[in-house]
Amino acid sequence: MDEDRFARLEQRVRRLEDELEITRLIASYGPLVDAGAAGAVAQLWTEDGEYDVEGWHMRSRADVHAMVESAAHRSLIEAGCSHFLGPAQIVVDGDAALAVCESLLVRRADAGFRVWRAGANRFQLTRTPRGWRITHRVTRALDGAAAARDLLRATVAGA
Amino acid sequence: MDEDRFARLEQRVRRLEDELEITRLIASYGPLVDAGAAGAVAQLWTEDGEYDVEGWHMRSRADVHAMVESAAHRSLIEAGCSHFLGPAQIVVDGDAALAVCESLLVRRADAGFRVWRAGANRFQLTRTPRGWRITHRVTRALDGAAAARDLLRATVAGA
Amino acid sequence: MDEDRFARLEQRVRRLEDELEITRLIASYGPLVDAGAAGAVAQLWTEDGEYDVEGWHMRSRADVHAMVESAAHRSLIEAGCSHFLGPAQIVVDGDAALAVCESLLVRRADAGFRVWRAGANRFQLTRTPRGWRITHRVTRALDGAAAARDLLRATVAGA
Repeated sequence: MDEDRFARLEQRVRRLEDELEITRLIASYGPLVDAGAAGAVAQLWTEDGEYDVEGWHMRSRADVHAMVESAAHRSLIEAGCSHFLGPAQIVVDGDAALAVCESLLVRRADAGFRVWRAGANRFQLTRTPRGWRITHRVTRALDGAAAARDLLRATVAGA
Repeated sequence: MDEDRFARLEQRVRRLEDELEITRLIASYGPLVDAGAAGAVAQLWTEDGEYDVEGWHMRSRADVHAMVESAAHRSLIEAGCSHFLGPAQIVVDGDAALAVCESLLVRRADAGFRVWRAGANRFQLTRTPRGWRITHRVTRALDGAAAARDLLRATVAGA
Repeated sequence: MDEDRFARLEQRVRRLEDELEITRLIASYGPLVDAGAAGAVAQLWTEDGEYDVEGWHMRSRADVHAMVESAAHRSLIEAGCSHFLGPAQIVVDGDAALAVCESLLVRRADAGFRVWRAGANRFQLTRTPRGWRITHRVTRALDGAAAARDLLRATVAGA
């Protein structure tokens, strides 16, 4: 058994671990934000990570924390809602990664629930000493405008 | 190449296999329950596994089987429905695991479909000689009540 | 360290890589088709791959490309829509694989969005020199008809 062959296999395993760690991170966003767990949501980003969503541009963990604690968000979760993210397409490149997924904002209404918004999401992530974190997330409504469609193409050309 | 280093890599691979096996198990619930495949759905649980969903507390495989065969469930699938589960956030700890995801119950209505319920789900799982199985699943509507939000926080503190 | 033990571990790692590659492929369908990226969508299939969806049976990459470029599809995405696929249950068997998932077609309507269709999807895939590709995808509406329910059972008996 030579060292090189073993090192290559270790590298492949690390690549799989990276991908599953990012999968877990993105899968945790919806549950945590719908629970109102502001501290845990903020920890998904780097200290100066950004979240740019339809006219609300957060530029730090503190901004993300404030969004989850805001009256607007609290009224959403108290009335009943689901930030439902689909499976992400993840592309890892060394210590950086890109992930694209669609999302639905579902709110309680009438006797059931309604889809309030369908969105396109692009996440840029970085490996930190404490694990993968989001550096930049952009979300745009899938309302026919080009902005959302451009986000969805993010993985086609690159990585 | 020393034995310890090899054993550590085997352990990391097993951890990834566990996580993907649980991913498959949870991803199969919706398709199987919408197909009315009662036997296959029941096999996702341990013999005495529990499924506690909004006033219906099943306490065994036989109970889960009976739910899928019930007139209520059959009328759901014959009218057209989707038990749509999102990607699960999975935390494996030795022979136990915890998974959290949100879900939508979508039913045919009018000219299209409607979201009947958005739910929070917490799965507790155990490793058995025949693979991972659910020991306890709790589902609560995301209707603004604290019960659902508490389930969504399940992975924050622990495991 | 013996060669056999190392080869077995390599095989397990490859199996995990296969499963995650297919996960990425299926997770990319919705974003790419909603972006109108016809070339990239067509590349998810083999050259003579089929996509059979509710009265539209495509039999090649060129057919899939034409669907994405069609006036019908363009009007969908220009009005705002999400082809939202759930997490797939993936079963790999050597150079072939089977995947089952549910999907929602969500369209902009009124002040928000509506679920136009809930569907059952079965993907058959093959390993090619350039990676995994779809050879046959069948999608049927979850409208109570047996056709959709049969697709959802695909992984129960086989693989």
